[in-house]
Amino acid sequence: MSDVARLTSRVELDGGSDVVAVEEPLEIRVGGEPLAVTMRTPGHDEELAVGFLHGEGLITAGAPLRAGLTDDLAANVVEVDATLTRDPGTRRFYTTSSCGVCGRGALDEVLLTAPDVGPRDTPHVPRALLASLPERLRQPGFDATGGLHATGLFDLAGELLLVREDVGRHNAMDKVIGRVLLDGGLPLADRVLCVSGRLSFELVQKAAMAGAPVLVGVSAPTSLAVSLARECGMTLAGFARDGRVNVYAGAGRVT
Amino acid sequence: MSDVARLTSRVELDGGSDVVAVEEPLEIRVGGEPLAVTMRTPGHDEELAVGFLHGEGLITAGAPLRAGLTDDLAANVVEVDATLTRDPGTRRFYTTSSCGVCGRGALDEVLLTAPDVGPRDTPHVPRALLASLPERLRQPGFDATGGLHATGLFDLAGELLLVREDVGRHNAMDKVIGRVLLDGGLPLADRVLCVSGRLSFELVQKAAMAGAPVLVGVSAPTSLAVSLARECGMTLAGFARDGRVNVYAGAGRVT
Repeated sequence: MSDVARLTSRVELDGGSDVVAVEEPLEIRVGGEPLAVTMRTPGHDEELAVGFLHGEGLITAGAPLRAGLTDDLAANVVEVDATLTRDPGTRRFYTTSSCGVCGRGALDEVLLTAPDVGPRDTPHVPRALLASLPERLRQPGFDATGGLHATGLFDLAGELLLVREDVGRHNAMDKVIGRVLLDGGLPLADRVLCVSGRLSFELVQKAAMAGAPVLVGVSAPTSLAVSLARECGMTLAGFARDGRVNVYAGAGRVT
Repeated sequence: MSDVARLTSRVELDGGSDVVAVEEPLEIRVGGEPLAVTMRTPGHDEELAVGFLHGEGLITAGAPLRAGLTDDLAANVVEVDATLTRDPGTRRFYTTSSCGVCGRGALDEVLLTAPDVGPRDTPHVPRALLASLPERLRQPGFDATGGLHATGLFDLAGELLLVREDVGRHNAMDKVIGRVLLDGGLPLADRVLCVSGRLSFELVQKAAMAGAPVLVGVSAPTSLAVSLARECGMTLAGFARDGRVNVYAGAGRVT
């Protein structure tokens, strides 16, 4: 089955049919215990689970890890065998803290655990290359449905190394980072991540946890995404289209 | 402060500046206990909290309810005083169930609690009207930033009654439904909801819980969104643009 066939589903319409993106829940279990459910496009579920856990700071690259689907494939359950870095029930940011939650707290939470992606010996990236990455992002599922987000992993020459599509933009990035983690490729010191849509705090958080020095998107960043990228020393670029791009953080890396 | 000024923030760029959508976490507490944190655009936070709880089936329209920000406005905490319909810790769908999770389970969960929006005396909606709604959706925040989603509430003549913008598409809909709930207007028997983007399961779920007979979006639906709309008897229309629209469910209401 081709990738597009797996990502999409045909539905009947009044007087015709259309192809839509598949969306199904996936339960992520660690050590047999359910930890999270996400709505996602099926496929690459082990990568999704591992990438999600890494983005939350619950597992670290290099630690022993196994991930796989349960025997009952229809159950939409992925099992991860790993030792978590902390009790997920004590997750500070999404549960309460005595001082309440605020943007500052969200930033501090990520900065505590993310590897430093600040100024260092990463090669510089030409502005024109950043602007061209969305065109190089292959999105067959989006082309068929208009309903999938994509994350692509590029090298510094602009070659697409890996791409994942999903109904959830966060899932697409989790799948890319999960794949790289399983292959022993974290941190992403000399790579560029490119997303097909908007740049939220959550996407910058995941990229920061993976040590990505450069994140570029086709559309707009949010205020907190810009703040986090600046504090991490990450280069954040948005509105990459028509040969142009806005650089919101880490402009020193862009030539 | 104008609505746009509240939704947006100016950031400095290399050689200029840009306006971006504000994103901040909000903690929702019920009876003093933290229940959820969502990343949202500040403003209309009481509506967001109430709409969120309603979409999750945790409160019902008509029950006694108060919502307000805590005294420390910088804390990004909203307090809701309401009796929940069940222990949120036992939420069936996003926690585990003995049969695992699957699309079927997700549908059943919503169908159990959503009001019936199936075939009934709702007036029909002309196809041309559905196709025109996105153009009637005022989005000053999006116009300024390109980074906000919107949900609009329309009457059957196509008049825009209420619109909310937010970095999260689910938040924009929560705010609209929360406002209507606070005003005693649920279920949305003779209203049309219109969203600025894609149609995920989550958005159909929230609309179904509010009893909305018609939901239309500018972009693509997912497979599970179509399934849920069909089972609920909801009219679901996507790709409403350039005078055209695809009807994925409930075509009987469209003339």
